[in-house]
Amino acid sequence: MEISELRNRVYKANMDLVSNRLVICTWGNVSGIDRENGLVAIKPRGIEYNQLEPTDIVVTDLEGNTVEGSLLPSVDLDIHLAIYKHFKEIGGITHTHSTFATAWAQARRDIPTYGTTHGDHYYGDIPCTRQITDNEISGNYEKSIGELIVNTFLERKIDPSQMPGVLSAAHGPFTWGTSIEESVENSVILEEIAKMALFTELLNPEAKELEKYILDKHYFRKHGATAYFYQSKEPKK
Amino acid sequence: MEISELRNRVYKANMDLVSNRLVICTWGNVSGIDRENGLVAIKPRGIEYNQLEPTDIVVTDLEGNTVEGSLLPSVDLDIHLAIYKHFKEIGGITHTHSTFATAWAQARRDIPTYGTTHGDHYYGDIPCTRQITDNEISGNYEKSIGELIVNTFLERKIDPSQMPGVLSAAHGPFTWGTSIEESVENSVILEEIAKMALFTELLNPEAKELEKYILDKHYFRKHGATAYFYQSKEPKK
Amino acid sequence: MEISELRNRVYKANMDLVSNRLVICTWGNVSGIDRENGLVAIKPRGIEYNQLEPTDIVVTDLEGNTVEGSLLPSVDLDIHLAIYKHFKEIGGITHTHSTFATAWAQARRDIPTYGTTHGDHYYGDIPCTRQITDNEISGNYEKSIGELIVNTFLERKIDPSQMPGVLSAAHGPFTWGTSIEESVENSVILEEIAKMALFTELLNPEAKELEKYILDKHYFRKHGATAYFYQSKEPKK
Amino acid sequence: MEISELRNRVYKANMDLVSNRLVICTWGNVSGIDRENGLVAIKPRGIEYNQLEPTDIVVTDLEGNTVEGSLLPSVDLDIHLAIYKHFKEIGGITHTHSTFATAWAQARRDIPTYGTTHGDHYYGDIPCTRQITDNEISGNYEKSIGELIVNTFLERKIDPSQMPGVLSAAHGPFTWGTSIEESVENSVILEEIAKMALFTELLNPEAKELEKYILDKHYFRKHGATAYFYQSKEPKK
Repeated sequence: MEISELRNRVYKANMDLVSNRLVICTWGNVSGIDRENGLVAIKPRGIEYNQLEPTDIVVTDLEGNTVEGSLLPSVDLDIHLAIYKHFKEIGGITHTHSTFATAWAQARRDIPTYGTTHGDHYYGDIPCTRQITDNEISGNYEKSIGELIVNTFLERKIDPSQMPGVLSAAHGPFTWGTSIEESVENSVILEEIAKMALFTELLNPEAKELEKYILDKHYFRKHGATAYFYQSKEPKK
Repeated sequence: MEISELRNRVYKANMDLVSNRLVICTWGNVSGIDRENGLVAIKPRGIEYNQLEPTDIVVTDLEGNTVEGSLLPSVDLDIHLAIYKHFKEIGGITHTHSTFATAWAQARRDIPTYGTTHGDHYYGDIPCTRQITDNEISGNYEKSIGELIVNTFLERKIDPSQMPGVLSAAHGPFTWGTSIEESVENSVILEEIAKMALFTELLNPEAKELEKYILDKHYFRKHGATAYFYQSKEPKK
Repeated sequence: MEISELRNRVYKANMDLVSNRLVICTWGNVSGIDRENGLVAIKPRGIEYNQLEPTDIVVTDLEGNTVEGSLLPSVDLDIHLAIYKHFKEIGGITHTHSTFATAWAQARRDIPTYGTTHGDHYYGDIPCTRQITDNEISGNYEKSIGELIVNTFLERKIDPSQMPGVLSAAHGPFTWGTSIEESVENSVILEEIAKMALFTELLNPEAKELEKYILDKHYFRKHGATAYFYQSKEPKK
Repeated sequence: MEISELRNRVYKANMDLVSNRLVICTWGNVSGIDRENGLVAIKPRGIEYNQLEPTDIVVTDLEGNTVEGSLLPSVDLDIHLAIYKHFKEIGGITHTHSTFATAWAQARRDIPTYGTTHGDHYYGDIPCTRQITDNEISGNYEKSIGELIVNTFLERKIDPSQMPGVLSAAHGPFTWGTSIEESVENSVILEEIAKMALFTELLNPEAKELEKYILDKHYFRKHGATAYFYQSKEPKK
């Protein structure tokens, strides 16, 4: 991928957060990775979305050294880098403070799998990390948050390719995908799932989680070798 | 009806789900039936709404064999076909994952008849099916879901012409109407009823259902031989 | 007032319900009265808002006889007429099924006076009628509903000039004003008050009502001889 | 600052409340102060937002005497003046009746610090004043409200530069900032925080407040000498 294409797609993906009403002010950032060249493009820090320009996008290497762009990268860069380093199949990461997903993160709860809308996209409960400790953030705060996300998946044996998102406790959601654009779509979907799940609990505090056989049916009619939901085996990436 | 008219109306009805904010991504599908020629037009599977073109609409016979169109029909086609086969008076079916109706489906609850807004359009509680069993989905999953919907109406002796919609447990709503356009309108209305009913319960956990005499008054001032709600006996179809 | 002006203002007021997101489908109607000539203009029955034309507006006398217009008046005409006959100071009436006001009506509860937003516009709790009886609707249903609204104010000694709206139990809100346009604004305000009051109760089930001295302060800084909220003594009508 | 610039910025800031959906009707007002010349520009009283013109903005001195403009200033002017007199570092004040912030004010509750979105902008729980007494409002009501806001900060030892907003009990929010525009942004942010906090409590009635070390980390990565959230030490004002 040309570096200009990487930057343009990351710029457009960031702006799609605005049109999807997932961010206001500076509350979010999208990055994309060019695995071949080891380059990550990301929104610059502290720039309001309504002032963001394509040339503002910053490109760094996997250690966070700036390769292209005159602005400082997002303060959350090290969270993105930690996730990219451990989850090698992903191509883009989206972070927002979208209302309902953030409410679940603030409630410090996993989002239960209440329906097929959830099961079509996230294979099981969407994890919320534990809160990070005072000691863990004494060094690089953002790097520690990134590693806590990764360790949450490792410890709970969750496959990030089947669970393309996480709630950072008391903070908000991070989602990813095989492409930059898919990571944005997974944020759109997560927000809708989070909203439906709250209303489901208000309607039925004893709501049941989706049975395993239905979850499997829905998830695997869309994903993997047995998929038949799309025109071809898998969605366009 | 000309096959081109059928496809155009089904295309337009699908797009109306977007403008009515009832679908995002690929989360829904509208179909229409030409009873005379035994043809059903439906959205193709796995196509995002923002990429849908009029020529993408697929036409099949009542057994699901493609008659016109180069794409595969919606994976939910067999749900639609089961409903068309048993409910002979209906001309269109709409499926969405609209937020509040889906929350009721995920709560696995019928929507109680709390007000005249509900009673004007749905003659009684809007049924939620039971969850389908593991055994029942071992064959054709979508066909089984369609038959479960039909059987819910037969067993509970509900008249589908007076109850133009259902909640598929843990999944979402299906609505119908004598025309394609009416099936879409019934999805719009269902979402609003579902929203009002949740807020009603939050305001009064002991909320009473609408008295039978008021339900009858409202439903039958709009529908049937005694109707006087419209300029003529019945609404334009 | 010229009859053409009356019709035009009623048409525009009806369309303002759409732009204020208070109605969908056919769910509402606005009327206006010319007291001097004893004429009432109102939306025709059963016409979808997105198809309404200025020439569709119907003009009747106070007994409901059509004076101008080729369509049948709203089925709710007799509710409007009953209110106009008893509350002689009002010039316009608006009926909607707006989401939150309707939820309170379905919960069959008065809306408590939780804040100054409420007290600025409605002088005390907004009343919800009791449900009408089977016997009472054996004759003219709509006229009986109108009379029940009037009697609710008479029996509870509520002054309709200080309480420009009511919830019809299990049905929805009716609001009024000295002008057609003010009746619409009072529907906009009622919906917002109804929404805030629900969220107030969710945040504090023991929420206190506004103290009488603050209610008086706020209501009378906007209304009556001691008002100082506007550029002149009273708002533009 | 030129007086014309002051008025233009105050006009634009008022209109931004509309585009941010924080006000309807006359429900809000923004003011700005020119500290050097001791001048305050504010929205005129009782003018609907959809009729507001740039030349309507009123300029007064710090005692409330009109210096420029032909209309009467907002009835809330004395609230603004009390805040400007005591909190000398602020340059703009915004008042709205935004839905969720007002619901917290009506619930008469401080907004707990449930997440980093909150902690990024407000350093701790957002205070709600006590209700003012009957006696306190016997004189100048608005001045008394302003002084109650100031005293709430003094008594609770809250630094207004770290806590740019308050809930006036049973009334609604006031926010401020070093600039006019920042005061508006803080109203946008407060409404979003208020919404998230309600949903957090619905999801977890025992939700924990943000740990002090995370609050410090987030607040001070954006504010003050150790800030690194922006391209330079502090955001553009």
